[in-house]
Amino acid sequence: LLSITADASSLCSKQGSSLVRNISEATQSDFGRGGLAHITVAGALLHGMKEVEIWLQTFAPGTRTPIHRHSCEEVFVVLKGKGTLLLGSSSMKQPGTPQEFGIYANSTFSIPVNDPHQVWNRDEHEDLQMLVVISRPPVKAFIYDDWNVPHTAAKLKFPYYWDEECYNAPKDEL
Amino acid sequence: LLSITADASSLCSKQGSSLVRNISEATQSDFGRGGLAHITVAGALLHGMKEVEIWLQTFAPGTRTPIHRHSCEEVFVVLKGKGTLLLGSSSMKQPGTPQEFGIYANSTFSIPVNDPHQVWNRDEHEDLQMLVVISRPPVKAFIYDDWNVPHTAAKLKFPYYWDEECYNAPKDEL
Ligand SMILES: [Zn+2]
Ligand SMILES: [Zn+2]
Repeated sequence: LLSITADASSLCSKQGSSLVRNISEATQSDFGRGGLAHITVAGALLHGMKEVEIWLQTFAPGTRTPIHRHSCEEVFVVLKGKGTLLLGSSSMKQPGTPQEFGIYANSTFSIPVNDPHQVWNRDEHEDLQMLVVISRPPVKAFIYDDWNVPHTAAKLKFPYYWDEECYNAPKDEL
Repeated sequence: LLSITADASSLCSKQGSSLVRNISEATQSDFGRGGLAHITVAGALLHGMKEVEIWLQTFAPGTRTPIHRHSCEEVFVVLKGKGTLLLGSSSMKQPGTPQEFGIYANSTFSIPVNDPHQVWNRDEHEDLQMLVVISRPPVKAFIYDDWNVPHTAAKLKFPYYWDEECYNAPKDEL
């Protein structure tokens, strides 16, 4: 138990130790979501960020985020590939039929606060790679099973997928 | 005068009108700083962001930022080229001789809050291109003429270079 604890703790603290970090050498994982490659470029739990957090995410063909909402700001910068942004309503009882927006390399978009949304790599061959910026980390997201779930029934997922391990690690080395 | 006002206003409001924007088509300028190409990817004044702001900046060989500090968080992601991060002290009376850190494509670094810093493309041939993320926009930066200016004598530059035009434009269309 002690060594597991130590490993988790050092994984969650040592990544923040150098000022300039090589993103190519950062830990990458799907965090249980098949087809996702997620890297926390600068994060609250990993690097002590307090106001912004940045992710590098790659979605394999056909994969997508959950339908979710959050009260923080979120901006995407698409580096490679193309896909679809699906955007539901926050002013009706449930998201409803989402609006669809094409996204593509060198495009940027920001999610209106609290609007349910999903990003989807609909391409059959090419990865979709994006830098994602959020405010007020770590992210507190509410997940919808589908677009007709009432907002009140969306489920809080906290800590979020990539924050789970560090959130639960002892904080004594930080 | 009326038409100048109207132009400034439309420049500062129309860029925020579509949800997905093509960064390649965004307005790019040096804002009076030779060798800089700055694009506000998602900004407070241009796009109504409240908590985060994102810039795409390209520095020609030999060019650099001013020596400056700010109380917001700032994260850099280097997309192309290489250079040097110079980092002074916030705990002495003046920045003093800065520490130097090599930065390079696929590296990331965040500036400790209130530490005086400068990013410098020291390469003779290649551009240095970075995505820059700040919190609490628009940025309020204090500029130092050199590393030996006392912190108390650094000069507030607000609005910052790329915020000047929109900050001074009438807000009625926003
Ligand atoms: Zn989101
Ligand atoms: Zn700065």
